Amino acid sequence: MLLLIAEYLGIAAFAASGFYIAVRHRLDLLGIYLSSFLTALGGGILRDLLADRLPYSLTHSLPASTGILVTSLLVWRRMHQHPWESRTLFVFIDALGMVSFAISGALAGLQAGFNIAGVTLLAFTTAVGGGILRDILINKVPYVLHGGFYGIIAIGIGLILWLLHRLGWDHPLLLTLLFITGVAIRMIAYRRSWELPRLYER
Amino acid sequence: MLLLIAEYLGIAAFAASGFYIAVRHRLDLLGIYLSSFLTALGGGILRDLLADRLPYSLTHSLPASTGILVTSLLVWRRMHQHPWESRTLFVFIDALGMVSFAISGALAGLQAGFNIAGVTLLAFTTAVGGGILRDILINKVPYVLHGGFYGIIAIGIGLILWLLHRLGWDHPLLLTLLFITGVAIRMIAYRRSWELPRLYER
Amino acid sequence: MLLLIAEYLGIAAFAASGFYIAVRHRLDLLGIYLSSFLTALGGGILRDLLADRLPYSLTHSLPASTGILVTSLLVWRRMHQHPWESRTLFVFIDALGMVSFAISGALAGLQAGFNIAGVTLLAFTTAVGGGILRDILINKVPYVLHGGFYGIIAIGIGLILWLLHRLGWDHPLLLTLLFITGVAIRMIAYRRSWELPRLYER
Repeated sequence: MLLLIAEYLGIAAFAASGFYIAVRHRLDLLGIYLSSFLTALGGGILRDLLADRLPYSLTHSLPASTGILVTSLLVWRRMHQHPWESRTLFVFIDALGMVSFAISGALAGLQAGFNIAGVTLLAFTTAVGGGILRDILINKVPYVLHGGFYGIIAIGIGLILWLLHRLGWDHPLLLTLLFITGVAIRMIAYRRSWELPRLYER
Repeated sequence: MLLLIAEYLGIAAFAASGFYIAVRHRLDLLGIYLSSFLTALGGGILRDLLADRLPYSLTHSLPASTGILVTSLLVWRRMHQHPWESRTLFVFIDALGMVSFAISGALAGLQAGFNIAGVTLLAFTTAVGGGILRDILINKVPYVLHGGFYGIIAIGIGLILWLLHRLGWDHPLLLTLLFITGVAIRMIAYRRSWELPRLYER
Repeated sequence: MLLLIAEYLGIAAFAASGFYIAVRHRLDLLGIYLSSFLTALGGGILRDLLADRLPYSLTHSLPASTGILVTSLLVWRRMHQHPWESRTLFVFIDALGMVSFAISGALAGLQAGFNIAGVTLLAFTTAVGGGILRDILINKVPYVLHGGFYGIIAIGIGLILWLLHRLGWDHPLLLTLLFITGVAIRMIAYRRSWELPRLYER
């Protein structure tokens, strides 16, 4: 239930981030909607492609799709007045979405009988795949590949969920705890500007 | 029947457009064939991936694949003599393909039980997905995202077909009418250089 | 058996190539692992998506995934000492992988009932798809599209396997012969710097 609310908040946050980037790159209205749509639902669509099933957002969740439209409209209205006032709030909502998407991806991987690599990849793909697709379209190197402490959280969630499942501990309460911990780590990483190490070429 | 002829004309036109862009970007022969192939058949392959079925062009339609080879060869011969003489003819054949692809995508979405977002996305993906894949490979921002009045027609066709299906009016005659209207709108948009509005960042 | 060993050597070589390119593009550790993973397993995942089945590397082959980790770690250690000492050895191992991937892709296409275009596309996609995905992420035009004599070998293998299958000659011995011939042609092409012809725009 908590996860469901988080997922819809995440869809809204992801749609908003797709919108901002599309506007900054001067796409036209169609490009803006496509960018929002891909960012918000692309991760879930990739998840369902890899798990070899029909994309959930294209069959069931009319809410999701209307969610995007509503968000785009809301954000659009806001554009005419003033930019997003609180960057921290945005990062927080985005973190809710990223973490809940990672959990839903890992669960889908477990359900499809994937191994540890598969479960982790699916958690990662679901959480950041939408943003990666958008960045590929916009023709830039995806942010998650070269900065910040973001995708690694989704990877961690995948690994932990696979382990919990192996131990037979995949209880809703533990999922909730994992969700809260994931969001907390993301917010701390954001406030302290954590980065992953790099290997420079010599 | 009309749709089938339009689809093959469209495959030919899309293959030709893939060819021209590959040559302009100095790809080698393999790149040229891949660019033609992706532009012509990529939309349909994406459609079948999303609808969770085997790609039609890889199982049935030997015609499609030979169609591409024939086109590439024809265009190649022409290269040695003189460039395409009529841009309007090219835009017209391309419009036939785009509109018939949008219709085939929307029908596949309806058949897979997709909701309005799914049907529209599938119409769009089938119609312009091949060109988007090609532009991603060639490493440029896809044309449909930032210019012209093109992808929006595919979106419109998806919405209308979903509505017709809901109303129980998906009669071949109406499909034909929709096809002709779509092509007509595309040609008018081309002649008058219609553009979608943009939202510039302030 | 020979093919299996070649495939794992290929996965190792592809992971190493993903690693080098990620380091050169200054991706962080997550980006480096993702680049290795995509280069090594991306082709097989694309193959299974197109053949409409669960990605093999995400369900069965724990070996493959650990293979990548081991390779990355090995290469990483090496980075701290000195660069890869033998370019020819690297090209040779890469050729083993590319040719065995092309064969596995073509066989998957035959099994899925694909036509000649499908079998060839699947051979090509499995062999070079991982590298193409990596290049798209890194935001450059894929190497195979504009240089060298590489992807064309995968295409040739696809065509020959389709022909052998048609003639009922798909005997393990012939597969082995095809494998050795493919690797030999790749090495000759590398030593002699073969290139495919281009068509410049006039």
